[in-house]
Amino acid sequence: MANENQIVTKEKEASAAHGNERLFAFSDGVFAITITLLVLEIKVPEIAEELVATELPQALLHLVPEFVSHIISFFVLGVFWVAHHNMFGHIKKHDHVLLWLNIIFLLCVASIPFPTGLLGKYPNEQITVAIYAGMWAITAVVLELLWWYATTHGMVDQDTDPDFITFVHRHIRKAPIFYLISIGVSFFSLTISKFIFIAVAIFYILPNPLERKHYKTLARRFNQ
Amino acid sequence: MANENQIVTKEKEASAAHGNERLFAFSDGVFAITITLLVLEIKVPEIAEELVATELPQALLHLVPEFVSHIISFFVLGVFWVAHHNMFGHIKKHDHVLLWLNIIFLLCVASIPFPTGLLGKYPNEQITVAIYAGMWAITAVVLELLWWYATTHGMVDQDTDPDFITFVHRHIRKAPIFYLISIGVSFFSLTISKFIFIAVAIFYILPNPLERKHYKTLARRFNQ
Amino acid sequence: MANENQIVTKEKEASAAHGNERLFAFSDGVFAITITLLVLEIKVPEIAEELVATELPQALLHLVPEFVSHIISFFVLGVFWVAHHNMFGHIKKHDHVLLWLNIIFLLCVASIPFPTGLLGKYPNEQITVAIYAGMWAITAVVLELLWWYATTHGMVDQDTDPDFITFVHRHIRKAPIFYLISIGVSFFSLTISKFIFIAVAIFYILPNPLERKHYKTLARRFNQ
Amino acid sequence: MANENQIVTKEKEASAAHGNERLFAFSDGVFAITITLLVLEIKVPEIAEELVATELPQALLHLVPEFVSHIISFFVLGVFWVAHHNMFGHIKKHDHVLLWLNIIFLLCVASIPFPTGLLGKYPNEQITVAIYAGMWAITAVVLELLWWYATTHGMVDQDTDPDFITFVHRHIRKAPIFYLISIGVSFFSLTISKFIFIAVAIFYILPNPLERKHYKTLARRFNQ
Repeated sequence: MANENQIVTKEKEASAAHGNERLFAFSDGVFAITITLLVLEIKVPEIAEELVATELPQALLHLVPEFVSHIISFFVLGVFWVAHHNMFGHIKKHDHVLLWLNIIFLLCVASIPFPTGLLGKYPNEQITVAIYAGMWAITAVVLELLWWYATTHGMVDQDTDPDFITFVHRHIRKAPIFYLISIGVSFFSLTISKFIFIAVAIFYILPNPLERKHYKTLARRFNQ
Repeated sequence: MANENQIVTKEKEASAAHGNERLFAFSDGVFAITITLLVLEIKVPEIAEELVATELPQALLHLVPEFVSHIISFFVLGVFWVAHHNMFGHIKKHDHVLLWLNIIFLLCVASIPFPTGLLGKYPNEQITVAIYAGMWAITAVVLELLWWYATTHGMVDQDTDPDFITFVHRHIRKAPIFYLISIGVSFFSLTISKFIFIAVAIFYILPNPLERKHYKTLARRFNQ
Repeated sequence: MANENQIVTKEKEASAAHGNERLFAFSDGVFAITITLLVLEIKVPEIAEELVATELPQALLHLVPEFVSHIISFFVLGVFWVAHHNMFGHIKKHDHVLLWLNIIFLLCVASIPFPTGLLGKYPNEQITVAIYAGMWAITAVVLELLWWYATTHGMVDQDTDPDFITFVHRHIRKAPIFYLISIGVSFFSLTISKFIFIAVAIFYILPNPLERKHYKTLARRFNQ
Repeated sequence: MANENQIVTKEKEASAAHGNERLFAFSDGVFAITITLLVLEIKVPEIAEELVATELPQALLHLVPEFVSHIISFFVLGVFWVAHHNMFGHIKKHDHVLLWLNIIFLLCVASIPFPTGLLGKYPNEQITVAIYAGMWAITAVVLELLWWYATTHGMVDQDTDPDFITFVHRHIRKAPIFYLISIGVSFFSLTISKFIFIAVAIFYILPNPLERKHYKTLARRFNQ
């Protein structure tokens, strides 16, 4: 009887591990492809042979704004990858709903190059700034939904600190608010909106109090 | 003697695990690339600088049908990934034939962006609707063949419920039937055909009785 | 003393496994991307709106030869992936040289879409047929070098049957010979050359005596 | 008490392993995509049907310089992948900072196709040679930063030989120096600069004293 239980438990673990591994492989694949193609999208300028020496430096300078918009998107995608990575460090199971929330999240991730290219090409239109911000806001909302579902349906490690769960919620929820503000601001100043995009990226990349508390909690646990 | 057997068994398991892991990595790679490039295929519209302010919103509106066709394909590819993921949660071994059935399945998956782009570009032609539906029907037939081969050649877990095997068969077999119907309908109404494409996606995404029974069975087993 | 040895052994295994896993991930990534992009390369035909109804079926028929050349390359890449997969089921270690032989092999794999596109676009030129065949011949030679290096430098499982090693050698070595013959034939008949391309793909996909013996050997070992 | 500690330790290891695995998957994905698309970037020449027989060989010959620049970048990316692979054979943990250093490193890797395409298209401009060399120099500096951070913040295996750490530092630091020299040289001779690019690739691919010492050290340890 005990033996049977053991087999069942072992199987259960194997199955769970198997599932999450493929979920990671698929998610990391979509992230890696999107992030790489984002950079690859910038094309080498075409210049007639006799004009190369005089016009190439100028042509490269003209690409600078496009580089900037793509590098910002690269870093924000990095932020989302790190967030996904940290969340799934605590999510140990998955079901049909979580799989699909993850697929919808990946649809958002894979869609980012379009608004990025749009903003890079037409940087002085309110509509492109708003679409760009809106896409990131939606992406953050889907990730928040995923975390909400995982934490309220017993998918996370039983010993995950409730404080940590709340912190993650509070942290992600800031993103759509920031982006909605940047949409509002875009009606008055596109420059300030774009400045907000850079500020949001920096806010999430620099280690913040949430992470400090989180890592401290982990360190305390491990060193007891 | 017993010792030798043990070594042999251990090796067998290692080899099987090794093989399936790479099969997953390769399959997830093809899925991730196809699904990401599907979305990346939609190009930023090219508008002369002096016309951007007036024509950009219109140009973006014109892209909506293309977005819709690509998002439907994204979700149907998601359905096939989830199906592949669920199947290989039970398939524990593979041989030369299964490897090749999987490669042919991946050829179908990687081919999807072509009919999707075709449908997005020429949405009012019977031929593009039929090619789109036909491609998905073939993909489903190949996956059904894979499941048939795996379950009749001892590749699945010995304790897989025969009922579950039958359910999966019944579930997959509906897809080619749905798509063949949509081809038939396309001779009368392209709008209804496209409506069927959306309905099929929703049918497979929403948790259905099959899944409920399957998860209940698993839960019962694990909680005994 | 025994304890120290144990730790060393455990570490060694972990390190070896770690290394090979990333080698697989990288290789499977290159294969998955190449094989997917190969199919994605075929572009939706551009037709003026008023001519779509009359010209689209014709335009799609014109793409058939291109589809054929890409599907053949897809299957041959599948053959090489299966071969790589089977080889590395026996290769348990790697060193600097093996890493680089693998990278050169992947360079060949990633290069395949160019000769494939060339053949698809200019199918009636002797030079494109010869380049296509030549690229596959080189790819096979590099894989043979990799197998030779792995088996002569103690990288394979100690209990790998020497007969199996010889079989693999004999099997791979046929590929460059087949392709060199098709180059020779291309000076007389391009049609026969292309027929050889299809024949080679079928030869390697259909289960052959080598595989039968190999799987029989494995089965006998596991069932003792 | 001891039991609790054991559980904590096991968890810690699992969590670390989990994190690094996804870091590898993501990194290998970016490498695989970049390296494959680099080769795919070379386009089949477009020739009018009646001129194919006479102009195709010439058109292919004209692509040779572009092939050369892309193959060099392929090999240098290979060098960086092998270096990343070797480093992370010793790095056993990661934190927020290391994750981000790795993401910045991957941004450099994903950016390589742009300077490569630029150099392939305008091979006789000092500015393209300098941008190409500069990009590789930055990539090497970021990898050096990553290694510095990992080794000074307790992220590497405790039993990593300090000599090995120093060797890796010395080895990586040569790369930016080589590339800066090639930038200096580019003001006098573009040919010599490009020769340096090839020489650097060969220097890092051929097994060098560092590797010999490293592998000898490992071998000695394992054979005691």
